[in-house]
Amino acid sequence: MFTSGYVSNEAAISTIAKLLPNCLILSDALNHASMIHGVRSSGVSKQIWRHNDLNHLEELLIAAGPDRAKLIVFESVYSMDGDVAPIEKIADLADKYNAFTYIDEVHAVGMYGNRGAGICERDGVMDRMDVIEGTLAKGFGVMGGYITGKKSLVDAVRSYAPGFIFTTALPPGLCAAATASIRHLKESRVEREAHQRQAARTKAVLRAAGLPVMPSVTHIVPVLVGNPDLCKKATDILLEKHGIYIQPINYPTVPRGTERLRVTPTPFHNDVVIEHLRDALVDVWETLSLPFSEPSVPEVEKAVRQQIFSAAGG
Amino acid sequence: MFTSGYVSNEAAISTIAKLLPNCLILSDALNHASMIHGVRSSGVSKQIWRHNDLNHLEELLIAAGPDRAKLIVFESVYSMDGDVAPIEKIADLADKYNAFTYIDEVHAVGMYGNRGAGICERDGVMDRMDVIEGTLAKGFGVMGGYITGKKSLVDAVRSYAPGFIFTTALPPGLCAAATASIRHLKESRVEREAHQRQAARTKAVLRAAGLPVMPSVTHIVPVLVGNPDLCKKATDILLEKHGIYIQPINYPTVPRGTERLRVTPTPFHNDVVIEHLRDALVDVWETLSLPFSEPSVPEVEKAVRQQIFSAAGG
Repeated sequence: MFTSGYVSNEAAISTIAKLLPNCLILSDALNHASMIHGVRSSGVSKQIWRHNDLNHLEELLIAAGPDRAKLIVFESVYSMDGDVAPIEKIADLADKYNAFTYIDEVHAVGMYGNRGAGICERDGVMDRMDVIEGTLAKGFGVMGGYITGKKSLVDAVRSYAPGFIFTTALPPGLCAAATASIRHLKESRVEREAHQRQAARTKAVLRAAGLPVMPSVTHIVPVLVGNPDLCKKATDILLEKHGIYIQPINYPTVPRGTERLRVTPTPFHNDVVIEHLRDALVDVWETLSLPFSEPSVPEVEKAVRQQIFSAAGG
Repeated sequence: MFTSGYVSNEAAISTIAKLLPNCLILSDALNHASMIHGVRSSGVSKQIWRHNDLNHLEELLIAAGPDRAKLIVFESVYSMDGDVAPIEKIADLADKYNAFTYIDEVHAVGMYGNRGAGICERDGVMDRMDVIEGTLAKGFGVMGGYITGKKSLVDAVRSYAPGFIFTTALPPGLCAAATASIRHLKESRVEREAHQRQAARTKAVLRAAGLPVMPSVTHIVPVLVGNPDLCKKATDILLEKHGIYIQPINYPTVPRGTERLRVTPTPFHNDVVIEHLRDALVDVWETLSLPFSEPSVPEVEKAVRQQIFSAAGG
């Protein structure tokens, strides 16, 4: 247990990588800032593989050789795009080339899997990962983070990570709240079903209105704007005129040219709310003369490849 | 506001130091792990000054020259020894040599000062510090951390610190609890007075029994053991035989040879509890054949100088 998901990633990735002799980290290009922080803190060598690109990952694994310690770090649900890693295939590569796997399930725990353990549970691959990292915020609605894995690995992190040793414990009230959340979401599927239904509905309703909803296979609904000033203006109008609070997602969170609104419906955003959002977005799009169209996926992809790919390694 | 005191230090020190061109960090040798983490994350040059040694600090300030950006990072109350920094004199040096000051008041907020703002408030030097960092845990009993300073400086940290930007917010229940704590301790002095009284009493009672209480001018009561195995054994006996939970403080938290029990009485540790602790410690000291005597301060100092001094810079 850590004080947050951010701290879990920073502390665990840096500690595991430091403890493995001559470790090479292989990090997905779209990994979260907290994972990048952990990679940097470790001080070990790293290579960035193109987002979700199994061929590129395999090339790097082959180049590193079978004997070198290798740690593959990636996410299940990518929070700004809503796409999902090919987890089982990454596990197959890890087995084939003798690498450790570290997956961030922060945007999935509570929300996916029969008992809410995340995408790895949903896909039946929990046992294929060396470390699954998660949060008690987001889906569980409280605060705190954790890693799961073999006892020896968890003990090693517990014994060496400054971000675990030299910090405070979660307050009892917070632990009680998180425990209640987890207990509830292990049994109840009502919230997960409603969540998926309302997210799917949001995508469908916005797309039907011609709004540029980016491809997403999860509850994350990114709507492309493609310009940081217009992105900020769009969120200002949404708040001031329509009473809807959505943060503008600009560089460095996403690559330049792919600035977006990121809508994350909950089970409690009902159909009326979704239609209100659609009407508000249509008004914003007309006010700012933004294009009504499917977002051009190859262009988005190109921007991601060119910009994040060089920046993430920095 | 940050998710913890640890994160406050890591995020703020690293961000401020990175933003100041060609910054040199001057760090007290006994600074907390979270501050060392911040210093390291910044990637800037650092020099370690001998603990609370104004002459050494001044030497380093002179050597750096007046034009170079310099950030002096230190604590008010040092958590493992219970001593206090010469804050006003450090501020004088900072003014004289054109340096920024960053003070950690984590072990003082809620507990010192007329309204509980910390040692800087007690000593009337709050306005002399560029950054005062504190916690909502410890004295305030909840969780979270913060920095205070000029608006422009705080805005800079807010705009650039990954540990602030890419993490979760404190949950409402936690904020409400922290607010209630702060509000109460700004008005009520009952707890601070009882705290000081019971801490002073603990020191007096343990010293009167011949136990090696280390010098401390605060509520922190370190009792020297001087050996890691005996330190662990002492705490085991305390817990198993006497029902008293005290953690052994061993290397790397303190230098080798200065292993200790760290007693931190609260306002609620009444006289009966203190006498029970004394009797239990006397039993432990007899059982383990530990010496009854004043701790040899020069020897403790020497161990601190020799061991931490080289380690802290590493």
